[in-house]
Amino acid sequence: MNEFDLIEKYFAPLSRDGLKDDAATLSVPGGHELVVSSDTLNAGTHFLENAAPADIAHKALRSNLSDLAAMAAQPLAYQLNLAFPEKPSEKFLKDFTGALAEDQKEFGIFCSGGDTTSINGSLSISITVMGVIPGGKAPKRGGAKEDDVVILTGPVGDAFIGLQILRGKIETGDDDYFIEKYYRPRPRLDMIEHLRKHAHAAIDISDGLVADLTHICKQSNLAAEIRITDTLFSPQAQKLLHKGTVTQEELLTGGDDYELVLAVPAAARVPGHTIGVFRPGPPQVAAFDVAGTPMAFSHKGWTHF
Amino acid sequence: MNEFDLIEKYFAPLSRDGLKDDAATLSVPGGHELVVSSDTLNAGTHFLENAAPADIAHKALRSNLSDLAAMAAQPLAYQLNLAFPEKPSEKFLKDFTGALAEDQKEFGIFCSGGDTTSINGSLSISITVMGVIPGGKAPKRGGAKEDDVVILTGPVGDAFIGLQILRGKIETGDDDYFIEKYYRPRPRLDMIEHLRKHAHAAIDISDGLVADLTHICKQSNLAAEIRITDTLFSPQAQKLLHKGTVTQEELLTGGDDYELVLAVPAAARVPGHTIGVFRPGPPQVAAFDVAGTPMAFSHKGWTHF
Repeated sequence: MNEFDLIEKYFAPLSRDGLKDDAATLSVPGGHELVVSSDTLNAGTHFLENAAPADIAHKALRSNLSDLAAMAAQPLAYQLNLAFPEKPSEKFLKDFTGALAEDQKEFGIFCSGGDTTSINGSLSISITVMGVIPGGKAPKRGGAKEDDVVILTGPVGDAFIGLQILRGKIETGDDDYFIEKYYRPRPRLDMIEHLRKHAHAAIDISDGLVADLTHICKQSNLAAEIRITDTLFSPQAQKLLHKGTVTQEELLTGGDDYELVLAVPAAARVPGHTIGVFRPGPPQVAAFDVAGTPMAFSHKGWTHF
Repeated sequence: MNEFDLIEKYFAPLSRDGLKDDAATLSVPGGHELVVSSDTLNAGTHFLENAAPADIAHKALRSNLSDLAAMAAQPLAYQLNLAFPEKPSEKFLKDFTGALAEDQKEFGIFCSGGDTTSINGSLSISITVMGVIPGGKAPKRGGAKEDDVVILTGPVGDAFIGLQILRGKIETGDDDYFIEKYYRPRPRLDMIEHLRKHAHAAIDISDGLVADLTHICKQSNLAAEIRITDTLFSPQAQKLLHKGTVTQEELLTGGDDYELVLAVPAAARVPGHTIGVFRPGPPQVAAFDVAGTPMAFSHKGWTHF
């Protein structure tokens, strides 16, 4: 089976038009803007070399969908670029595209095209996701206002723990839970309507809560004061914190979580934990523990270089 | 300089909004469709490991723009995903983004976002290009009609010769000319209006003339009969053909050219060489030499696996 046959058998069914042309044509509804984002995931950096094909597919597509969620955009289509170190097995392609098909159904998106290539190196997956939003409704990182509260939509740190388990560094009583959080994050597309109504700024916390909240601070030129309590962590993570298996700093800066952090007016009713407030001041995050003591971080989040 | 500083210094200037958000928002004019295409270029496969950063940038962006040209779409924006084996030097980034900036100006496009990552392997560049076209105006591979003529917009095979020179396999008196054709192809965006008016089908010949014309045949369920004459090749390539340095088959199947092949009504006035005609018959390309003798090809074009 050559490259074109593999595309016909495994990738064309993910599309609407059979991937027949040099490019796809897509309609954007009148009065809407197109929202576009890209994420590349490389074996050994973003997922383990021995990761299951379905896990890789879920993580790749969902981490991209998370960027649409942060922009309050409805998913439309995605481009899938795959660079393979060697000809992929049919088993790999079946599992990989099967997982994409599941996610397409769940999140309402389809594959509009892409490219499959051979690479001198490890598997690399680059996805560009496109969504739509009524014009002017997208929250921006630079939109936070003084006295806005900081909302976190869900627990932070679970994916970091999942990665440590996969690397064989720790064991927990909840390994499956944490690994699922690492490989199969849930993009918070359920928050879209809340964001469109209330959010002045939003970002997903894939680089770590502190690093990503710092992005909002910098673009909005405001300080964020946040209070770190156990309720920011899942009950499963809290158990490990209490045992000393992981630290709060690791969970707050580890990255790979796909919850959102938002700036919304204090009076807005938005699901999630209110963890702080935006104030005038140097554009950075000031974190305090339960006792009100400032917390210091040796690093803020993930960086490639 | 860390990852975020590098993005700020070298990539943000390629954008309109400073790449501040999780995603870009783009406007698509009313009555227009969005046209989307992706191409991945990997070191050692799509360009030589020792290629100059500017050459890599030109080839990557222009090969993507060529897909827009084949769809008769006006360039709008592109996503740039870069996976680096090691932290890139500032010299590399300066040359690379400088070449992109030149092409942005020339072809009327800007960078709407992307991702920079570290990879266990060679440099990999994945671009997703977006353009716009009045609704319903994009030529499709499946649109060729019986008695349409086959138009080739420019010479075929020059890029193949360029690659052979770069690999040290041949020498010519026109090395610079051929290498430029390999690394700095000119996407035929100047053909957009002709395509919108006349083309029933179009494709770029990046995989080789015969392979790509075969795609039109298959999608349109027609045979294409083409006549191979010296006028299909550049004067520089003709010299090498006459000396026996290269063969017609190599030039016709080598790939990496970014001319277009079109199906248009015989009466249409479209610039380019009329090289054949679409007929009812098995969906494949039948090539004949000047004497009318059928030509056979041992392979039709480039495939990754």
